[in-house]
Amino acid sequence: MSRMKPSGYVCETVLRVRYAETDAMGIVHHAAYIPWFEVGRSDWLREAGFPYTEFEKLGYYLVVAEVGARYYRPAHYDELVTVRTWMADIQSRAVRIEYEIVNAAGATLVTGFTKHICIDGNGRPTRLPKALVEAVERQNSAFDPRAL
Amino acid sequence: MSRMKPSGYVCETVLRVRYAETDAMGIVHHAAYIPWFEVGRSDWLREAGFPYTEFEKLGYYLVVAEVGARYYRPAHYDELVTVRTWMADIQSRAVRIEYEIVNAAGATLVTGFTKHICIDGNGRPTRLPKALVEAVERQNSAFDPRAL
Amino acid sequence: MSRMKPSGYVCETVLRVRYAETDAMGIVHHAAYIPWFEVGRSDWLREAGFPYTEFEKLGYYLVVAEVGARYYRPAHYDELVTVRTWMADIQSRAVRIEYEIVNAAGATLVTGFTKHICIDGNGRPTRLPKALVEAVERQNSAFDPRAL
Amino acid sequence: MSRMKPSGYVCETVLRVRYAETDAMGIVHHAAYIPWFEVGRSDWLREAGFPYTEFEKLGYYLVVAEVGARYYRPAHYDELVTVRTWMADIQSRAVRIEYEIVNAAGATLVTGFTKHICIDGNGRPTRLPKALVEAVERQNSAFDPRAL
Repeated sequence: MSRMKPSGYVCETVLRVRYAETDAMGIVHHAAYIPWFEVGRSDWLREAGFPYTEFEKLGYYLVVAEVGARYYRPAHYDELVTVRTWMADIQSRAVRIEYEIVNAAGATLVTGFTKHICIDGNGRPTRLPKALVEAVERQNSAFDPRAL
Repeated sequence: MSRMKPSGYVCETVLRVRYAETDAMGIVHHAAYIPWFEVGRSDWLREAGFPYTEFEKLGYYLVVAEVGARYYRPAHYDELVTVRTWMADIQSRAVRIEYEIVNAAGATLVTGFTKHICIDGNGRPTRLPKALVEAVERQNSAFDPRAL
Repeated sequence: MSRMKPSGYVCETVLRVRYAETDAMGIVHHAAYIPWFEVGRSDWLREAGFPYTEFEKLGYYLVVAEVGARYYRPAHYDELVTVRTWMADIQSRAVRIEYEIVNAAGATLVTGFTKHICIDGNGRPTRLPKALVEAVERQNSAFDPRAL
Repeated sequence: MSRMKPSGYVCETVLRVRYAETDAMGIVHHAAYIPWFEVGRSDWLREAGFPYTEFEKLGYYLVVAEVGARYYRPAHYDELVTVRTWMADIQSRAVRIEYEIVNAAGATLVTGFTKHICIDGNGRPTRLPKALVEAVERQNSAFDPRAL
């Protein structure tokens, strides 16, 4: 039922929908999924042994340059949803991350992506730290798309 | 300095950045712009004489099917920003709305779009109410792209 | 190190701080704790066998009449925090819930309370459903304050 | 219809309820009022000639030590609400600010307060900057409670 083909290691984060994330339509507000993407990539990096907190300690920031999301089915209060996150593309100064959020039955609720640029403490675009590139490669090396 | 060419009447909404909208990078969190888009389209419809509250009273909902945003410059706490909103495309069952958020100096902070599908009270896709289509056409009829 | 004495069964919910919950001071924004209280009481009710979704299905709502919070120490992005929730008082039409949020070292970050009134589908105050009162009593019956 | 007696100059901020601020009960989520308090005190300080941005530039932070809110009536999407804010008490290292949020008919929706402590760049409690104390006194000097 999945709509996307991950191109790297998939980190799965289970979240329970908060009442505060719903809106007057009785469903999760469309903007509330964007922080879930963020939770997903945060978990991806932590699993890969390079948490974003380390990243900032080294004096780097991974700013969001672009975000996109498609909404297929609504989520409701108290539901368990799974955010599936993978590094879709990594370049010298930028990375593209993709997401698929599914419900407990495995049906796709939302798909999306973010593009990030690496900047230093002065706000200048810079090369991704080597430690990040290596962590991503190490994490993806075990990835076998046939196993999905 | 504007990066986008509006293709219809542009509604301008001035917002002041709230502290709650900032994050630990010291700038507005990227997800916080998505509700600003919503404020922009809400104002567009009200100006066109067909507020979204009327829309829901008629038993329709305009659900978000897709959202996209590109981030050019950060916004900071207490800054005044302007959300420029226009109806980029209107079809029988869907609309595409575009946005450009600029700072007080007129520089583009964020551009974006949303796609919406019209559903009825049972959640079934349905044609946009005629009153909405007419309001959009009326509002856009006076639009002269050369005036921008 | 705990600052509050729970007067009933304590439900513990572990949350990881989201980047979106931080503000320009580099810490969790004070308003972000309020939805954490909500997550806490949501988990309390689910553990007690009477999830809030059931509550709404019966045609009742538990509206928030009052909220209070005291802030002792800040929380930061990526930290694990624990929300400790208990039913402090239950009356015929109202309930008072208390909360203590602690960090991984057990230090108190925030304490708080909410007061709720039970309303029916027409918005009229009404008696708490018997099933809720029984679930609370059952859950609290095993509570031994000396065990804390 | 007002429920509170302001004890100082009242700053009024008009806000329009955003769809993102509503929840599945069809009304504004109770946590959404807390950032409105923040907008209110932000406007109070700007009107008094001492915007909070200046405050932070001087190396001070006004951290939230406590917040409280009572909810009387719900607010709904697209409604105009007014946040009334005043400095209720100012001490050497702390201030108490009070709020009343009313709807367009003047009926009280929410009342609340926040207590703040002044800290320096190292996170140590410190005396409020003299410029702030003077701005508050100047702004309040013209306040005549009989005029309310």
